[in-house]
Amino acid sequence: MKTQQIILKERPEGMPKKQNFTFQEVSVPSPQEGEVLIRGKFFSVDPYMRGRMTTARSYVPPYEVGEPIDGGMIGEVLGSKSDTLKEGDWVWGMLPWQKEQVVTAESVQKIDPNLAPPQYFLGILGLTGITAYFGLLDIGKPQKGETVVVSAAAGAVGMVVGQIAKLKGCHVVGIAGSPEKVDFLKHELGFDEAFNYKAESDLRTAIQRTAPKGVDVYFDNVGGPISDAVIQELNPFSRIPLCGQISLYNETSMPTGPRIQPRLLKQRTLIKGFIVRDYLEQADQARQQLAQWLKEGKIKNKETLVDGFEKLPEAFIGLFHGENTGKLIVKV
Amino acid sequence: MKTQQIILKERPEGMPKKQNFTFQEVSVPSPQEGEVLIRGKFFSVDPYMRGRMTTARSYVPPYEVGEPIDGGMIGEVLGSKSDTLKEGDWVWGMLPWQKEQVVTAESVQKIDPNLAPPQYFLGILGLTGITAYFGLLDIGKPQKGETVVVSAAAGAVGMVVGQIAKLKGCHVVGIAGSPEKVDFLKHELGFDEAFNYKAESDLRTAIQRTAPKGVDVYFDNVGGPISDAVIQELNPFSRIPLCGQISLYNETSMPTGPRIQPRLLKQRTLIKGFIVRDYLEQADQARQQLAQWLKEGKIKNKETLVDGFEKLPEAFIGLFHGENTGKLIVKV
Repeated sequence: MKTQQIILKERPEGMPKKQNFTFQEVSVPSPQEGEVLIRGKFFSVDPYMRGRMTTARSYVPPYEVGEPIDGGMIGEVLGSKSDTLKEGDWVWGMLPWQKEQVVTAESVQKIDPNLAPPQYFLGILGLTGITAYFGLLDIGKPQKGETVVVSAAAGAVGMVVGQIAKLKGCHVVGIAGSPEKVDFLKHELGFDEAFNYKAESDLRTAIQRTAPKGVDVYFDNVGGPISDAVIQELNPFSRIPLCGQISLYNETSMPTGPRIQPRLLKQRTLIKGFIVRDYLEQADQARQQLAQWLKEGKIKNKETLVDGFEKLPEAFIGLFHGENTGKLIVKV
Repeated sequence: MKTQQIILKERPEGMPKKQNFTFQEVSVPSPQEGEVLIRGKFFSVDPYMRGRMTTARSYVPPYEVGEPIDGGMIGEVLGSKSDTLKEGDWVWGMLPWQKEQVVTAESVQKIDPNLAPPQYFLGILGLTGITAYFGLLDIGKPQKGETVVVSAAAGAVGMVVGQIAKLKGCHVVGIAGSPEKVDFLKHELGFDEAFNYKAESDLRTAIQRTAPKGVDVYFDNVGGPISDAVIQELNPFSRIPLCGQISLYNETSMPTGPRIQPRLLKQRTLIKGFIVRDYLEQADQARQQLAQWLKEGKIKNKETLVDGFEKLPEAFIGLFHGENTGKLIVKV
């Protein structure tokens, strides 16, 4: 059996481009004892992947040039020589961008498609939902009546953060990059306030307008000038779960900006960087809570589905142009 | 009775200068019921006072132009109309820079000069010692075998931080601004390593040399390029107690520098701004522990004493030129 995989052809300089990727035909062997043949049905594209395209020391090893990209995938078992998985099962794994592949049964996790549509396990019931849950609750520790500001609020993580903060009784402000996203946050997800940062002449004024009591929790997905402005509006004893810095991922030199420590010191602010991997042992607890909130209609899910394996590179690039609302997933 | 006080004549622009201060003769009334007459014996000069000379919103109200500076003082009771204090008692208070003054007995705290020399209550047994204790132990949480780096290491806070970190079994690196201070840290206080940042052509190299296993706790008193360099050498799950930013206090415009959030995110670092006031309810616990360590010879104290009330402005200004080793105190 022949299949296709997607290779990192060269490391992107600045914004990633289609020509950084190439497609390659490879053979798929038959599964051996303990192995399964999987067909990828849903592939996740995520901002953190940009970091893996560089050689910088990080919490995950870099992708190698000439080797396939890998990431979160939901697949269906086509054939099994394992006792734990059978044909027709749905599984999640961190796997290469490849249509069909043979893997050991231990390298994937079975998911329950009756609990939620399978692709939810890449988003709201997967790494992005769990990221939002622990970043907000374990680091942000929002208290009733406090103001929570979230950047990239209409993204996969941000939309969950804001909805959980609403459930905790907070005044929730979303920062997003289009009027449609602002409308979505306020009218579909129930954020108290939201604004389109591209339409504001002064970001601090926009934050003062939408967070008139100051900012107690800033869930930071973006970094850069948006974060600079929010940091100026922090309240005493504020908390910043540091989740992403998407505005800086394509910088080709060391980004500079206002020094934030004097402000953090005055306000006795806590900043904590985190990645979802730090919480994997407690992931089931978050997944169950999120699934229950979904079932009770207390939170909503939103996805942008892109059709076709061959669209994976473009979908990934689109993340940096704000093309998605909710979780961006490529459906095969 | 006539006495002298020191007035903020004008707000400093950039580095403070002698002409920002002026001396004024005032009358001292007789103490009324519940009041005491105090003679100032030791006055504390501290970097945080620079912030109070501006109008910026902060955790303490600004000094007013035309009004006396105030700060930590150790005084002797010359006369008392209070039941709780008697002539000859030693007291601590946050009081105006004034030689003699009448205050209510409740506005000062009695200290025990048998426990330690009175001026210790302005330093190692006072706010700077307590700052070091809680910043390091509550936020830094140093573990045996970890590497602790402290900036302004020969200053009032830094010297205590490093010595406590040694007691906790850490590899301790001090950053200071002269060869004499480096010598003091290594040979008198027992720091494992120390370097003079002014003599290093590349700060990162100096940190790599002295902290070869990376940095687990960075106790930051200075900010600016020294902190930029240390932040590049942080280990995963590192902690930064953010105590001071003395290198930036005299900036006249918003300081800029490399953005630190990408690094904090990668290393899942925690930064927490704090001030000693946040810990005042537990201050006695710290003071008792520090006094015991002193008594047992496990930590040492160091002071720079400047003689003469009229030297207060110059002593304060000297803080920003690194003129002190240990706690800087003006003795009258």
